[in-house]
Amino acid sequence: MRQARRGAGRLRDDTERRGTRMVLRADARLRVAVVGTGLIGGSVLLRLHAVGVDVTGWDPDEQTRRQARLAGVPTAERLVDAVAGRDVVFLGGPLPTLPATLVEVAAATAEDCLLTDVGSTKAELAAFAAEQGLTSRFVPGHPMAGTDRAGLTAALPDLFTGAAWVLCPAPDGLAAFRRLVTLVTDVFAARVVPMAADRHDAVVALASHVPHLLAGALAGAAHRSPSRDAVLALAAGSFRDGTRVAGTPAHRTGNMLRGNRDQVLAALTQVTGFLDELAAALRCDDVDALTARYAEAAAARAELAGRPYDEQVMSFPVGAAAAEVAWLYDVGAAGGHLSGCRAGADTVSYVARRPRV
Amino acid sequence: MRQARRGAGRLRDDTERRGTRMVLRADARLRVAVVGTGLIGGSVLLRLHAVGVDVTGWDPDEQTRRQARLAGVPTAERLVDAVAGRDVVFLGGPLPTLPATLVEVAAATAEDCLLTDVGSTKAELAAFAAEQGLTSRFVPGHPMAGTDRAGLTAALPDLFTGAAWVLCPAPDGLAAFRRLVTLVTDVFAARVVPMAADRHDAVVALASHVPHLLAGALAGAAHRSPSRDAVLALAAGSFRDGTRVAGTPAHRTGNMLRGNRDQVLAALTQVTGFLDELAAALRCDDVDALTARYAEAAAARAELAGRPYDEQVMSFPVGAAAAEVAWLYDVGAAGGHLSGCRAGADTVSYVARRPRV
Repeated sequence: MRQARRGAGRLRDDTERRGTRMVLRADARLRVAVVGTGLIGGSVLLRLHAVGVDVTGWDPDEQTRRQARLAGVPTAERLVDAVAGRDVVFLGGPLPTLPATLVEVAAATAEDCLLTDVGSTKAELAAFAAEQGLTSRFVPGHPMAGTDRAGLTAALPDLFTGAAWVLCPAPDGLAAFRRLVTLVTDVFAARVVPMAADRHDAVVALASHVPHLLAGALAGAAHRSPSRDAVLALAAGSFRDGTRVAGTPAHRTGNMLRGNRDQVLAALTQVTGFLDELAAALRCDDVDALTARYAEAAAARAELAGRPYDEQVMSFPVGAAAAEVAWLYDVGAAGGHLSGCRAGADTVSYVARRPRV
Repeated sequence: MRQARRGAGRLRDDTERRGTRMVLRADARLRVAVVGTGLIGGSVLLRLHAVGVDVTGWDPDEQTRRQARLAGVPTAERLVDAVAGRDVVFLGGPLPTLPATLVEVAAATAEDCLLTDVGSTKAELAAFAAEQGLTSRFVPGHPMAGTDRAGLTAALPDLFTGAAWVLCPAPDGLAAFRRLVTLVTDVFAARVVPMAADRHDAVVALASHVPHLLAGALAGAAHRSPSRDAVLALAAGSFRDGTRVAGTPAHRTGNMLRGNRDQVLAALTQVTGFLDELAAALRCDDVDALTARYAEAAAARAELAGRPYDEQVMSFPVGAAAAEVAWLYDVGAAGGHLSGCRAGADTVSYVARRPRV
């Protein structure tokens, strides 16, 4: 027993020395690349550089590469030079380009090089990576922050601070997932939300993509209105807020919606269903129905303002992949997130925060 | 000729001495009341008090009156005491209460006491005022600012700075309108948008009321979603912005929508029509159509960010009511606003700013 306890003690020391928590502290030699350095990839690049990680960027656009160099960030002239010998590569750039980028970067890096992306939909790319046999080292990711501007010049090193950053753990990709959890929480101060790729797409359809459709419809209808000029002159907070993302580059919004088409159309049906109920209540001047619907809406809104969380530490033996993934999915489905991960030779433990029920 | 010119010169002096521009400067004894001092009326009250106008507030709610007194603002115990002997009375409070408040305040004030309201719809109240024979002294108004909170404790003296403030000039109420233009531009630093009452309601249906419906539908659908917790956890800027006004008090939103029902339903049809086009383009994966629709949306959005204005000074003989009203409506329809008014015995002149074409 004592020996076993001592053994366990050694194990823990081992965990701390080799654990992913130390990606930055012990493994100061971590070498990272970011391929595709627009708004999101560029913000990843700036942050990694700002905290002192050895990082190199690359973008197919020559002007973007020049901007990065002017900002003092190491940037390679060729993709292969950016990613050669790297431990982790972040894949950015337009959504439709990600599969080809993944193949190219995978071919140019070693088997133990961890890959992840920052695209806004996940199921298609996750399936593609599985076809390519990359599940063990590719972790689909989606940092949920942005602005209505585009390009490296709009990038901000603090863009992801406090933001949700979805990572999709697969049973045969847990080692890569755990390393990335630590990197994302430590370097970006983001909330890691573990979620299956298709589940992510269903959720963001409602949490992000349909809001883009509504914003486009509101701004577009105003543009076509015979009262266009007066509408824009009287546009108060509700219109400004409700149309903000209609100002994002049209092709980026289009790619995002097309990359998640079925889920977006399904979520849109939920929203237009609720809208029909509001309109029906208004048409019949049914005060009670109208007030009840808005009370439902306000309940969701109130939770956005701030939810109390309970913190939980959970440990798994390293081999119990099914249980670990099931628990991770449950954290994400409950609206929770991970704030840390320690992975040792035999045990992995997470710190999770879940909304209090 | 010379005498005529001298005459004109005297006229101008007269204008400046008696003009409404001097409501505050020369007429330091202006006495104002605000009846109904929630978020909007309360902000009007705080601003008037802050700039040194002799103002008294009143609210049917005893706690609100106490809050006003605690804030050091003169507040009467009875409506009649608040409005007696006043030159201008602002009417606030819930939309459905405004007709009764108008009748009560009109009965308690002299014929030359100017009345205006701060409600979010205008046609019904304007028609009611006409029935009551109050057009010559009641000017329907709508300051277009707010927050998602309610009550005097949420009121802010600077709430209307730079905001659009619709005032509805009637041919037989121009004298009152001109005085109010000066008061609103001088005291509140707002942009006065002159507009017919029914036109206002059609415009705000799209600029403000439908955005409230969309926000309610989005937040309500999220509330009912089986993925509710995950949706709220992943809610990024687009969802937060798009649902902000769903957090406003349900009864206030309900009153606003019901007070403008037909116009809101008509504007909603325009927006859902555009939404259907976006959904159809997405369903067919028609990139060009999707991008073209978003380009329309972005065009409207871009103008919100800032439009260049041309300034214009326009004068009318005091008796030319039809021409004056027609020009005022045209300024509002063009997305313009008034930044000043000088009314003399024979001539009235406005400073207008119109979006450059």
